Amino acid sequence: MGLLETTKGRIFPQDSEAREKAKQRLDNLALPYWALGDLMDLGIELAGMTRTIRPHIRKKAIVTMAGDHGVVAEGVSKFPSAVTPQMVYNFVRGGAGINALARQAGADVFVVDMGVAADLGELARQNKIIDKKIGYGTNNIAVGPAMSDAMARKSIEAGIEIANQLSTEYDLFGTGDMGIGNTTPSTAIAAVCTGKDVEELTGRGTGLNDEQLLHKIAVVKKCLELNKPDKQNGLDILAKVGGFEIGGIAGLILGAAANRKPVVIDGFISTAGALIAYKIEPFVRDYLIFAHRSVERGHKHMQELLGCKEPLLDLNFRLGEGTGAALAMNIVEAAIAVLTEVLTFEEAAVAVADK
Amino acid sequence: MGLLETTKGRIFPQDSEAREKAKQRLDNLALPYWALGDLMDLGIELAGMTRTIRPHIRKKAIVTMAGDHGVVAEGVSKFPSAVTPQMVYNFVRGGAGINALARQAGADVFVVDMGVAADLGELARQNKIIDKKIGYGTNNIAVGPAMSDAMARKSIEAGIEIANQLSTEYDLFGTGDMGIGNTTPSTAIAAVCTGKDVEELTGRGTGLNDEQLLHKIAVVKKCLELNKPDKQNGLDILAKVGGFEIGGIAGLILGAAANRKPVVIDGFISTAGALIAYKIEPFVRDYLIFAHRSVERGHKHMQELLGCKEPLLDLNFRLGEGTGAALAMNIVEAAIAVLTEVLTFEEAAVAVADK
Repeated sequence: MGLLETTKGRIFPQDSEAREKAKQRLDNLALPYWALGDLMDLGIELAGMTRTIRPHIRKKAIVTMAGDHGVVAEGVSKFPSAVTPQMVYNFVRGGAGINALARQAGADVFVVDMGVAADLGELARQNKIIDKKIGYGTNNIAVGPAMSDAMARKSIEAGIEIANQLSTEYDLFGTGDMGIGNTTPSTAIAAVCTGKDVEELTGRGTGLNDEQLLHKIAVVKKCLELNKPDKQNGLDILAKVGGFEIGGIAGLILGAAANRKPVVIDGFISTAGALIAYKIEPFVRDYLIFAHRSVERGHKHMQELLGCKEPLLDLNFRLGEGTGAALAMNIVEAAIAVLTEVLTFEEAAVAVADK
Repeated sequence: MGLLETTKGRIFPQDSEAREKAKQRLDNLALPYWALGDLMDLGIELAGMTRTIRPHIRKKAIVTMAGDHGVVAEGVSKFPSAVTPQMVYNFVRGGAGINALARQAGADVFVVDMGVAADLGELARQNKIIDKKIGYGTNNIAVGPAMSDAMARKSIEAGIEIANQLSTEYDLFGTGDMGIGNTTPSTAIAAVCTGKDVEELTGRGTGLNDEQLLHKIAVVKKCLELNKPDKQNGLDILAKVGGFEIGGIAGLILGAAANRKPVVIDGFISTAGALIAYKIEPFVRDYLIFAHRSVERGHKHMQELLGCKEPLLDLNFRLGEGTGAALAMNIVEAAIAVLTEVLTFEEAAVAVADK
């Protein structure tokens, strides 16, 4: 049995006893009934994930997975692939959006080379990034599959390895991505998994105009018709129309769930990774917290398939990198604070409501 | 000239030069155009408020104003007035919702006795609360005005004094309230200021059933018909149908604006305070940041009147205390982090987008 199979074997549903106990406590807090709304719902989830009504977060990790995409040759992005390694250098330097927001949230950022089309060996040797490079960018999915089945498995297992390693110190994960062109494979994954029309799912990525958007829709359709991914098979979807960083994100999610660690899902690309993980093991859903609703069109449908009606934030983000996840980590901590620090009517000696 | 008038004289619109410079910088950050959406809009606001493109927050203060309401005699709340002082004790002990969320956000909580119907002198002597008591609860506004004109002015000036004092150390304020029955005066204020029907504005407060809600609507209407507040006059509205803590909140907001400090507005009661402040000096609007949308029905209309289309959060809160403001402070800090810590394309040596 490989790491993927043993990891699947370690994923269980949330603990119903911890959920029930959390609900009982929250029901009795010295405030009008359920007056902290979604934060109290989230508190129940966190208790269920961590099997305790006193969840404790030692450290928080944003794992930003980077990879390149052969499909950029089709003209689906406004930015050249060279920007992917440039942004990796920016992450390492601490000057990107994710660095600013992770610092605000008190989270550490781990940058992973899953498949950047440039040599990042120098950064890896300096331990500034985690080197899990599967290849120098995927193949062009408008011409053939993104990667081999073996590479798909390897990219997922790389994410699992990172989750397993970090779980010794970190109790909350956030997903992140960097990869020029990666809204195209993510849209393809969304189309396979949700069954919705490509038109309904395709967005403007980093800023396409109307004509470019129509072209991108045509490219996504072509990728799907050509590669015919098996919608029941997460590994096949990843191999046919995915990306190395998307596989890494899927693996991180599976690994987090296996270690009973809540994982905050960032935007469109991260949610594509979550869909791959879900196709591999549906119970990963029990460990997902949805940070925000991306401007990218298909995001809503993908989130709904994963059981999310309303994400925590809706601030018109469309950046990725883990930025939404970092910001939402504050809300996760707030939910734990409500569950563990607010006194009940009895503890606080406050009179209860009339009927 | 009294403190209220000198404070009004110190309130100016946002600085357009700082706004413009902030926009220029944000336009050039190494990310797809405006990809951090509302956080970038907020960055411009913060630059305009603080007159710098490098705003710095030393310390953050949640000021939770407490007061009681004679109108509770009409049966408009599920909780007895005794809960107001009990919750003040809970705040001081650190066991309430606001304590948990302020700790998460790294904010200090200041509890103010604006007019609790109980002797809190012991807590004041121990410096555990700020004593600005105007009276032992307001008069029943279903019978007559809430307070005298002099008391209305005094309650606002108390809030201004607190803002002035805290401004030496604190650079971000959040409003909060505690007062059994205070959704009733807040609804009356909302009705006067927005001109909307009372039915459209009245919510269930701490949890009224349908019958109790209808009764509350009738009480609000009676208060308005009896007291006839002058909708052009913030002080008159406060005196006729307001509350001591609502006046304190209005004063805190005026004082924050006079000191060019951004002020995060919590929920329904805090927004009623903001409406009073706005009626006194319309330019306070330039310093308001709206934390969240309350479950309480009228909140949306009140926020819209104050220029807020979408608040930062929408998590089905209906607690008050400053809980929404505390949680939103993280987002304010995140907006500053984006403005001041993220590098531009040029600084980060990242290639720009094609046209």
